[in-house]
Amino acid sequence: MTEPSLAQRLLNGDRRALARAITLVEDNRPEGWDLVREVYPHTGRAEVVGFTGPPGVGKSTLIGALTKARRQAGRTVGVLSIDPSSPFTHGALLGDRIRLSEHFLDQGVFIRSMANRGALGGLSEAALQAALLLDAAGRQDVFVETVGVGQAEIDIIDHADTIVLVLMPGSGDSIQALKAGVMEIPDVIVVNKADHPLTDTMIREIRGVLSLANVDRTAEEVRGSWRVPIIKTEATLGHGIDELVDSLREHRAHILAAGQLQERRRRNLHNEVLAIATARMRRRLEQDLQKDDEFKRLLAEVVERRLDPASAASTLLERAALRGQPVG
Amino acid sequence: MTEPSLAQRLLNGDRRALARAITLVEDNRPEGWDLVREVYPHTGRAEVVGFTGPPGVGKSTLIGALTKARRQAGRTVGVLSIDPSSPFTHGALLGDRIRLSEHFLDQGVFIRSMANRGALGGLSEAALQAALLLDAAGRQDVFVETVGVGQAEIDIIDHADTIVLVLMPGSGDSIQALKAGVMEIPDVIVVNKADHPLTDTMIREIRGVLSLANVDRTAEEVRGSWRVPIIKTEATLGHGIDELVDSLREHRAHILAAGQLQERRRRNLHNEVLAIATARMRRRLEQDLQKDDEFKRLLAEVVERRLDPASAASTLLERAALRGQPVG
Repeated sequence: MTEPSLAQRLLNGDRRALARAITLVEDNRPEGWDLVREVYPHTGRAEVVGFTGPPGVGKSTLIGALTKARRQAGRTVGVLSIDPSSPFTHGALLGDRIRLSEHFLDQGVFIRSMANRGALGGLSEAALQAALLLDAAGRQDVFVETVGVGQAEIDIIDHADTIVLVLMPGSGDSIQALKAGVMEIPDVIVVNKADHPLTDTMIREIRGVLSLANVDRTAEEVRGSWRVPIIKTEATLGHGIDELVDSLREHRAHILAAGQLQERRRRNLHNEVLAIATARMRRRLEQDLQKDDEFKRLLAEVVERRLDPASAASTLLERAALRGQPVG
Repeated sequence: MTEPSLAQRLLNGDRRALARAITLVEDNRPEGWDLVREVYPHTGRAEVVGFTGPPGVGKSTLIGALTKARRQAGRTVGVLSIDPSSPFTHGALLGDRIRLSEHFLDQGVFIRSMANRGALGGLSEAALQAALLLDAAGRQDVFVETVGVGQAEIDIIDHADTIVLVLMPGSGDSIQALKAGVMEIPDVIVVNKADHPLTDTMIREIRGVLSLANVDRTAEEVRGSWRVPIIKTEATLGHGIDELVDSLREHRAHILAAGQLQERRRRNLHNEVLAIATARMRRRLEQDLQKDDEFKRLLAEVVERRLDPASAASTLLERAALRGQPVG
């Protein structure tokens, strides 16, 4: 009898195979990409929920409580936590992991952090692959968590079926970002740490932003569209988690009924193909340029203000094309 | 006598020529790029300061007050305000413009908003070109403002010589983002609306974050490096503006003395050349794919889970290379 392949073990839900597979993808190893290719036909079954919001609002605790609820309902869970790159975040992340630690021994829960190495684009690419691996390994619920308060963070979890924005009383910057349209309106908004006296004030503010967002829509669009629920939670006590579970279920039912789930996935996969292609083109270009004396000369001219950046970029691209080189 | 060219008029500081030139760049017109190429040798003289921070903290008011101070010192000023793309921001932006309106009739001040059309990458590219045009037109101070609280927003103003983060009491999300390393430490931090009772609490929090940021540095690095000042302002009353002017001057003197200004500009121009090249490659790829039946077929396979996104991206790039096509 031959030993089962990594792909076979992954598809059987083997946790060690899953961990190994994600490492391969995270390290951008060819075997990782081969593996995703092999198991991809087995994906598309997981319900993928993305969580974003500023650091410190309790996203990990919330995901921990949600995981507990989903486990009690008999579902298997995968959690993918996207860490920022700073050298001085160790404390915060360790704290987050401790909050999830009650699940470490549960075979039905798989938790993985991915570090942001370099550009967000690259991490986003790796995170999608990892989410596909969790899906292929039979995780029924996949929770992807990203830390941040801008559009870039929403882009990372854009391939989720449902996007949850987690705030807490005092998240003034995020409310302003929603209001100013810097951040897109998510599918579900959670106000965690809702024991705070300013919770209701904050919920009123959020409602104001949401009604403002409807101003530019026709009455028909508003009627036909999803009404973003605002859920109050106290994740440390497990309060509000049932309501969150209900909202996630309702959102899923809504996008299924409206035919939006397929449309969303189609759009996200389209964007993902382009994002991977662009990231590879850029990586290739950067690699080529490292050993390229002509590029150094061009750059020196730019620095000396003799050649403008756009013309230097054109010259680079022309040369890459002349070399007949696959720029990607 | 022949009429002076647009470039000549721009270099003479003609405001209408400047407005026209920025529109050409914003619309991604070839004449815009030609113009930047022509005037680029006359750039590098302006002092470029980038302002970022959540919406609603009073960045425009602060820039208005700073502009007044710089005008009184006899300097010419250009302001470039990068607007987010949302359809429901009209109110906020109109408010911002009103705050700057006292300068509208001053020939020494040029104010321009640029809209975020599509990807941040594309806007970032156009914003740099616009900043170069302001520089070439002889604006001595160029202030670039972006709205947002993530790394993407800092990327937009990354070509500034000095980066100012503007907060207000209640900017809890931003403090957390700094703490978690989601956002890089800027050169100067302003706490605006400093008449708020929680101002000093907030300044203590910021100091805590900054001292944490120093933990991973050697003593020598800390001694040799710039100590980020925290400036309290009440921009509507003009309070704290002199201190901000002093801090900007000190930062400039510091990076000049340490040889960092040249190094910063070199690094930023390097990144800019790559960013422009990548943006063009992506645009070209997207254009090609719009009329490409083979891409539609590939994408359908991805949606049907028969071909994974990364393999589809590889196929696309191989085909582009086979066509011998300049992918950029």
